[in-house]
Amino acid sequence: MRALLFDVFGTCVDWRGSVERELARRGLPIELAVAWRAQYQPQMETVRSGARPWTTLDVLHREALDGLVSVEDPDELTRVWHRLNPWPDTVEGLTRLKRKYVIAPCSNGHIALLVNMAKHAGLPWDAILGAEVARAYKPQPAAYLGSVSALGLTPGDVVMVAAHNGDLAAAARCGLRTAFVPRPTEDTEPTADWDIVATDFLDLATQCGA
Amino acid sequence: MRALLFDVFGTCVDWRGSVERELARRGLPIELAVAWRAQYQPQMETVRSGARPWTTLDVLHREALDGLVSVEDPDELTRVWHRLNPWPDTVEGLTRLKRKYVIAPCSNGHIALLVNMAKHAGLPWDAILGAEVARAYKPQPAAYLGSVSALGLTPGDVVMVAAHNGDLAAAARCGLRTAFVPRPTEDTEPTADWDIVATDFLDLATQCGA
Repeated sequence: MRALLFDVFGTCVDWRGSVERELARRGLPIELAVAWRAQYQPQMETVRSGARPWTTLDVLHREALDGLVSVEDPDELTRVWHRLNPWPDTVEGLTRLKRKYVIAPCSNGHIALLVNMAKHAGLPWDAILGAEVARAYKPQPAAYLGSVSALGLTPGDVVMVAAHNGDLAAAARCGLRTAFVPRPTEDTEPTADWDIVATDFLDLATQCGA
Repeated sequence: MRALLFDVFGTCVDWRGSVERELARRGLPIELAVAWRAQYQPQMETVRSGARPWTTLDVLHREALDGLVSVEDPDELTRVWHRLNPWPDTVEGLTRLKRKYVIAPCSNGHIALLVNMAKHAGLPWDAILGAEVARAYKPQPAAYLGSVSALGLTPGDVVMVAAHNGDLAAAARCGLRTAFVPRPTEDTEPTADWDIVATDFLDLATQCGA
């Protein structure tokens, strides 16, 4: 084990609480957060299928927003996805893991979004990997394998960490090791026998000897 | 100004001293360090010209080594380029700059090499950019513009930092701002009117208000 790759939306950061707070601050209904996020998989599917070329989440998030509500500054509101807040254990857990392993996101977010989020939330990544480096959206195998290969490693050297059983299943099919961490807004129970099941990122660090 | 991109070999780390120490430790002539590095530009030119496809520096460094000397563990010796030591002011200067700006390498090194070097040398990058993300070697414009674009910025938002006047000239032609820092093994004097000329990374941080 040399590196850990992390799902970000939901696993490292609380997208739902963060977006709901921004909507409330603007006097918009907080239910828009879940409706906004619900567009995400169908939108990405149009890219995965080849129906549209590589597209960043800024474009997809903006299109989804336009279908839900009209606001004066839609680009600024869309950038709330760059400013999501971490779960309480995320930064300390990542900081401990970083001392012993390479840590990087393997997210469908693009590099600019993930860099801005890391600055906002204090996520101490060693590198920014995932969809944009691999030019493929999870759960396509290339998203995982491109991230592993960018680190000069083999899949068995790398643990994929997520609060989504489907993400881990796709990573496992590529030969990566797997760690499940439950989150209240995401999957709360593991549905398969993942290599690691941790209660949070602090427990994950402890189980990884970090 | 939102971000700084850094040349790495020579500007952030002392490739020559680091490689010479490794050669000396093995009882090999230290003159091999400069001879090894001298292959670098002609090798990359074969990729830039399209004569060969995208190739990582591990492959190029190994091929160059094979032409210079025969050793028992050429892959292990080649990885000395992942373990280069920083100049004395590098880590403190980058740490100060990181508090205010996005900092990332814009290097011809590939992601794995740059991640390993960052872990070894304590370089606190926000992201790993450069040739592999852009799929182009400096001084090709795509290497600079691809790194700027990955951050979601425009060239005028970004300062390229290097101890090589040629690197800065190429970045300036792409619209980036420029900062020259002299290094004893690299260019020691600016040859043009760069936006910033600093004595080292601490002076660079001060001049950038960080």
